[in-house]
Amino acid sequence: MKEEKVDAHDHARKSSSNLVDRKANGVDTIIHINGIDIGAGEIVIIAGPCAVETREQMLATAKEVYDGGANMLRGGAFKPRTSPYSFQGLGEEGLQYLKEARELTGLPVVTEVMDTRDMEMVCDYTDIIQIGSRNMHNFPLLKEAGKCRKPVLFKRGLMATIDEYLLAAEYILKEGNDEVILCERGIRTFETSTRNTLDLSAVPVLKQKTHLPVIVDPSHGTGHRWLVPIMAKAAVVVGADGIMVEVHNNPEEALSDGMQSLYPEEFAQMVREIEIIAGAVGKKLYHYKPLHV
Amino acid sequence: MKEEKVDAHDHARKSSSNLVDRKANGVDTIIHINGIDIGAGEIVIIAGPCAVETREQMLATAKEVYDGGANMLRGGAFKPRTSPYSFQGLGEEGLQYLKEARELTGLPVVTEVMDTRDMEMVCDYTDIIQIGSRNMHNFPLLKEAGKCRKPVLFKRGLMATIDEYLLAAEYILKEGNDEVILCERGIRTFETSTRNTLDLSAVPVLKQKTHLPVIVDPSHGTGHRWLVPIMAKAAVVVGADGIMVEVHNNPEEALSDGMQSLYPEEFAQMVREIEIIAGAVGKKLYHYKPLHV
Amino acid sequence: MKEEKVDAHDHARKSSSNLVDRKANGVDTIIHINGIDIGAGEIVIIAGPCAVETREQMLATAKEVYDGGANMLRGGAFKPRTSPYSFQGLGEEGLQYLKEARELTGLPVVTEVMDTRDMEMVCDYTDIIQIGSRNMHNFPLLKEAGKCRKPVLFKRGLMATIDEYLLAAEYILKEGNDEVILCERGIRTFETSTRNTLDLSAVPVLKQKTHLPVIVDPSHGTGHRWLVPIMAKAAVVVGADGIMVEVHNNPEEALSDGMQSLYPEEFAQMVREIEIIAGAVGKKLYHYKPLHV
Amino acid sequence: MKEEKVDAHDHARKSSSNLVDRKANGVDTIIHINGIDIGAGEIVIIAGPCAVETREQMLATAKEVYDGGANMLRGGAFKPRTSPYSFQGLGEEGLQYLKEARELTGLPVVTEVMDTRDMEMVCDYTDIIQIGSRNMHNFPLLKEAGKCRKPVLFKRGLMATIDEYLLAAEYILKEGNDEVILCERGIRTFETSTRNTLDLSAVPVLKQKTHLPVIVDPSHGTGHRWLVPIMAKAAVVVGADGIMVEVHNNPEEALSDGMQSLYPEEFAQMVREIEIIAGAVGKKLYHYKPLHV
Repeated sequence: MKEEKVDAHDHARKSSSNLVDRKANGVDTIIHINGIDIGAGEIVIIAGPCAVETREQMLATAKEVYDGGANMLRGGAFKPRTSPYSFQGLGEEGLQYLKEARELTGLPVVTEVMDTRDMEMVCDYTDIIQIGSRNMHNFPLLKEAGKCRKPVLFKRGLMATIDEYLLAAEYILKEGNDEVILCERGIRTFETSTRNTLDLSAVPVLKQKTHLPVIVDPSHGTGHRWLVPIMAKAAVVVGADGIMVEVHNNPEEALSDGMQSLYPEEFAQMVREIEIIAGAVGKKLYHYKPLHV
Repeated sequence: MKEEKVDAHDHARKSSSNLVDRKANGVDTIIHINGIDIGAGEIVIIAGPCAVETREQMLATAKEVYDGGANMLRGGAFKPRTSPYSFQGLGEEGLQYLKEARELTGLPVVTEVMDTRDMEMVCDYTDIIQIGSRNMHNFPLLKEAGKCRKPVLFKRGLMATIDEYLLAAEYILKEGNDEVILCERGIRTFETSTRNTLDLSAVPVLKQKTHLPVIVDPSHGTGHRWLVPIMAKAAVVVGADGIMVEVHNNPEEALSDGMQSLYPEEFAQMVREIEIIAGAVGKKLYHYKPLHV
Repeated sequence: MKEEKVDAHDHARKSSSNLVDRKANGVDTIIHINGIDIGAGEIVIIAGPCAVETREQMLATAKEVYDGGANMLRGGAFKPRTSPYSFQGLGEEGLQYLKEARELTGLPVVTEVMDTRDMEMVCDYTDIIQIGSRNMHNFPLLKEAGKCRKPVLFKRGLMATIDEYLLAAEYILKEGNDEVILCERGIRTFETSTRNTLDLSAVPVLKQKTHLPVIVDPSHGTGHRWLVPIMAKAAVVVGADGIMVEVHNNPEEALSDGMQSLYPEEFAQMVREIEIIAGAVGKKLYHYKPLHV
Repeated sequence: MKEEKVDAHDHARKSSSNLVDRKANGVDTIIHINGIDIGAGEIVIIAGPCAVETREQMLATAKEVYDGGANMLRGGAFKPRTSPYSFQGLGEEGLQYLKEARELTGLPVVTEVMDTRDMEMVCDYTDIIQIGSRNMHNFPLLKEAGKCRKPVLFKRGLMATIDEYLLAAEYILKEGNDEVILCERGIRTFETSTRNTLDLSAVPVLKQKTHLPVIVDPSHGTGHRWLVPIMAKAAVVVGADGIMVEVHNNPEEALSDGMQSLYPEEFAQMVREIEIIAGAVGKKLYHYKPLHV
């Protein structure tokens, strides 16, 4: 086992007393954010643009996803990009627009932090700190997130095994922050029709191994807009506590991830379909508001 | 793209006129087997033991899966095993028991063929010929299947891309047999909690690219009994035309794949749950018979 | 471990008495072919076109590689191709040309067999039977090769672990044929600059685990002509007993693998360079003949 | 192509004017460190323990590798570990011991930095900054390294393609630091006999694509002590400008990577063997000193 091999090189072993282990907690961890509970049995919908591009785009998209049924907003101010010549995000200016979007809609916000030096500033602006896939093994960042006072949405690495992922989450809990939301977002495989391969079996496996809530990001998991609602519904069936998707008020003009960003009307339709599927597995959407459409 | 690279070495390119392509057929291919239609919108359930081990085991399991709601029987007489010292299957004796199971239950049967020399004999016994993952690139076998008079259940290779898989299916259609059922059964990834990673997004991607029906095998796709019903339901949500699962009347004693074989009562429960999920996506189970339980 | 997981599903375990295991044989297996020894410490060079295309091409290339220093000829009469519309090989006609090339040069020949039904015919024409990567898990073919009276050049699968590979070789030995030559030819990885990733550490690992000789195919292992000599020399340094490369008298017109086929003069140059490297690790080329150039 | 897919989501494309591209520089980049040139044609040997554990261990190992023929010292003060319960490194105390080892031997030192906040401090202590595999996509860290005044030894990610790797290196050059040494250290594959699969073809491919020097780390690339010298020699044959290996004065007691750490006498023997191989490809070791043994 790859993970075994890595571990074989470590002197300290994953012990039975790891804080992330299901048996370490009598019950499922429920995370409370401005009146919303993640992991309490109702499906939470997180939506918004990949990147905060302009004040207008962020506020317009926030309004759209609020209308479409989102419970929380997402939007990146610091963007990890393969090329240094790609749009790198607006930085603190983006955080400011995100904060305005929260004031406009009342929805809590989640945004990514990439640098230990930005942790405090990002914590000041956001309701949930996101640590992205490429930083799953950025241990100083994990430790810093473990010291911050906000819940952490922690994404699985593109090629991490579930055991490696949970050991990385352990870095956060070990520092004192036990409010961690796990997120399956696709792993790298040889398949090329999709951007990544969404590993839906990871959801029940994680649920068996840990007490932490688990959400699914079908936008990065597939890379194609038309696949997002299909995989989002399947994610609910396998037990996800929430869904995080990219929505853009004008995907054709998006500065990143346009191909996988939903149009607002697709998002609203997806939420209605998720509600039906959730019902079929005995669940419901969180604080579901009648839609305006 | 890996597939591109392979193709770059070929002189003939995958052309727009491939027989597997969706545009090559005006409508979805529907496969008729003893009164059962695969690909016509109703979910077909295929169940049975990994291997035909004894007459008693095959008949008992066949009766159980019939009662549990199966539409077709599966069972291997020729088994591809990693080690030559593992049970290799009963051969023609196994086909005989499979035939008896069909007579007992009235259910059509599917069984794997591994050798071109066995094709005619296997065709005589079975209703559907299966070509397994390890033979996805066994081109002489594909050509022989293309000449046989029975439908072919053709499994995706453990590390094949979808485009490679469809080009392999093209070998069968090109020889004149257009009754091919595709089957997603998990791909090899670095994850070790599951035997393979079930690639559920492959289902809608295949449906978009080809007119052939697509089923899902969550038994091999996960390797763990408890994950099978969860992933089977998700497979229905993403658009699978059928589900193929391993059921054993005594999994603890199975000569192969015991860990992933359902107990008969788990199978019956799974069928009931699939029916509910199918309803939520506007589908139903094929010829669903009231269960005896 | 992936292999472990597969094995866990088998009832028979890889035991300490496997015939391929180093400890099963007191000494290294040496394979004698028409006066050439493979595995006896001198490097053997196998060269020729990917596919036998015409009588002229085969004879011209055979003459060229003989002049360049080859000890054996290769050439495919049955070609496994991703697409059914690619050139599939000349079949028995190709075997006939291969036989003529042997008569012309005196060099033994190796050619691939893909179908159990062709085994006897191919054995009649060739000195070594090749089983290709895509058939590493074609168990009926392995068993048939185990019964044939010729040595088997057995290639590692594109994504097989070394333990899976050795268990597959065990199928051949178990049937009574212990003349098996292993061949590392690249594995599938995410890297796209090369067709596959040549796993050179597999050579010493195989040498440690088994008594069988091991050769390396840098043509398929890299997919690019310019990389072939570089990786061939490295293969000698890590302990390969031989090198198998594709050479074409006119690579630009090759019906398959043209990009990775050496020009005859590149081949001759490579042999000279290999001889120098072999000397630096205390080895020499087999029956090295003064070159005509 | 995976990399293509990622890029397709970026607005800025890898352009022909990337600073890392071979064509962007008329000649190979040579990096000068305390009188040693990397990339100038002579093989540089970097050796030392995985982690700085104690003052005694660091100084003893430094002395040993100096005697064995090392040109530079390595040793980790900040250790990225899969588990938070594994030894995390001594931090600044470790840097102090590393500095002492430099004073003792006169050899320049390289050590890893993981946190942007530590960059300045690490730069003060070390001659080369190392960025490890797990931080290949830690963009803030790359930018900070791009602003520092020391050369950067930048390791390839465990599953990065070469194009992704070069785009990541571009982050460093773009900030003004063009003294980057690339390092192949193995990629994740399905093979389990080795810790990673050392991709030796990456060396000539990198050399073709970029003007930056390339070294190879066979310790992490294989994970097993006995494979290190074999693969180190092969690395020289494929064109590496240097070799970095782990050596420990007492590997059995190492706090990390003991299995892959050479004993000092094995290291000295390896250097002698590398010298012979280097000669066979027309190269020599850098400033090679007669050994004391």
